[in-house]
Amino acid sequence: MDTLATRPFPRRRGRPPKDASGSYAETRSLLIRTGLAVLTEKGYSSVGIDEILRMVAVPKGSFYHYFPSKEAFGQVLIAAYADYFAHKLDRCLLDTSYSPLQRLRNFVEDAKQGMAKHDYRRGCLVGNLGQEMAVLPESFRRQLSDVFQDWQQRTERCLRDAQHSGEIDPALDCVQLASFFWIGWEGAVLRAKLEQQPMPLDIFVNGFFTLLEQGRR
Amino acid sequence: MDTLATRPFPRRRGRPPKDASGSYAETRSLLIRTGLAVLTEKGYSSVGIDEILRMVAVPKGSFYHYFPSKEAFGQVLIAAYADYFAHKLDRCLLDTSYSPLQRLRNFVEDAKQGMAKHDYRRGCLVGNLGQEMAVLPESFRRQLSDVFQDWQQRTERCLRDAQHSGEIDPALDCVQLASFFWIGWEGAVLRAKLEQQPMPLDIFVNGFFTLLEQGRR
Repeated sequence: MDTLATRPFPRRRGRPPKDASGSYAETRSLLIRTGLAVLTEKGYSSVGIDEILRMVAVPKGSFYHYFPSKEAFGQVLIAAYADYFAHKLDRCLLDTSYSPLQRLRNFVEDAKQGMAKHDYRRGCLVGNLGQEMAVLPESFRRQLSDVFQDWQQRTERCLRDAQHSGEIDPALDCVQLASFFWIGWEGAVLRAKLEQQPMPLDIFVNGFFTLLEQGRR
Repeated sequence: MDTLATRPFPRRRGRPPKDASGSYAETRSLLIRTGLAVLTEKGYSSVGIDEILRMVAVPKGSFYHYFPSKEAFGQVLIAAYADYFAHKLDRCLLDTSYSPLQRLRNFVEDAKQGMAKHDYRRGCLVGNLGQEMAVLPESFRRQLSDVFQDWQQRTERCLRDAQHSGEIDPALDCVQLASFFWIGWEGAVLRAKLEQQPMPLDIFVNGFFTLLEQGRR
């Protein structure tokens, strides 16, 4: 079995072969989109590059025309997922037509619908790879950790807005709470995948919003 | 690469070969202990049975004398880990020389020390396999889910003791809180492994204990 994590295939040099999927940029983008779909479901270790290439009808030998190495492909996938997810977060958390806490609830609802749409098979690419870190290229560690940091900062800003608007106690530590949210949320996504249902997401989010009510009773 | 998840090797029949590690029962037990150590670090998909057999100096061909299939080996490992962990939980949560909440804190401290001892490389076997469920034998799903259920029930009993002793509000929902604990704790173990430090465990546990203080201010 070729896996992203283990067996390299020989690098071929020269001009990229023509294929049915159009231009170089289009094919590269298709490889990224397909990689994201596969890795959010299966993680990294168990996935073969062959599998991804077959799905997009790209000949095996031409992979290295698009990415210098499997590790680099992984890094590009993490960056692309981070980018996609930052936009998803911003779409909810910066939508001032809702109160700050409602924006956070909207994100949760959006994420829940996303998991339901894929029958709870797909989770979070960053959570999957974080769990597998012991067998991944060491360069992924900092990158994955930075992605969580970025999501936490976006969440922290939303919580500060909730303080300014009087929805939560101004004494709460928004840095800790945002960190708590992402630590627990990844556990909830893991359980929702395992149990193929949204209840773990609901239980975690209810607990988190109860935490936000501290000092308001 | 042979992995637990993919390539079966041919089953051999007949008497188990003699090996250096002693009796049949001893060798089987050694395979289980080694499997547990490897899977708590690396998960299931990326691990080859060859790797485990080499570590215990058991010839490749004799694996099927000890386990009927790789899937069965995985099931035995999950059951062995569940058993080991239930004892670990009971040792803390049933120790009446401490208050119920202190028992829960003792468990957390014990788990933290366990992760530190292995330099945050080893996490939770059930969390690892839960995350990988999309690529594992379907028989694992119910088994893993039942293990979480068991841990939650032990935790729930401890929280009820805390209600009886007046440490937490009698109105709190111990079922939900125990479930919340295990959902978030697995996320915290994931992050602690990724960041190779205990802070995610501390942040989650601090938040959880704050939740337990509801209604007491």
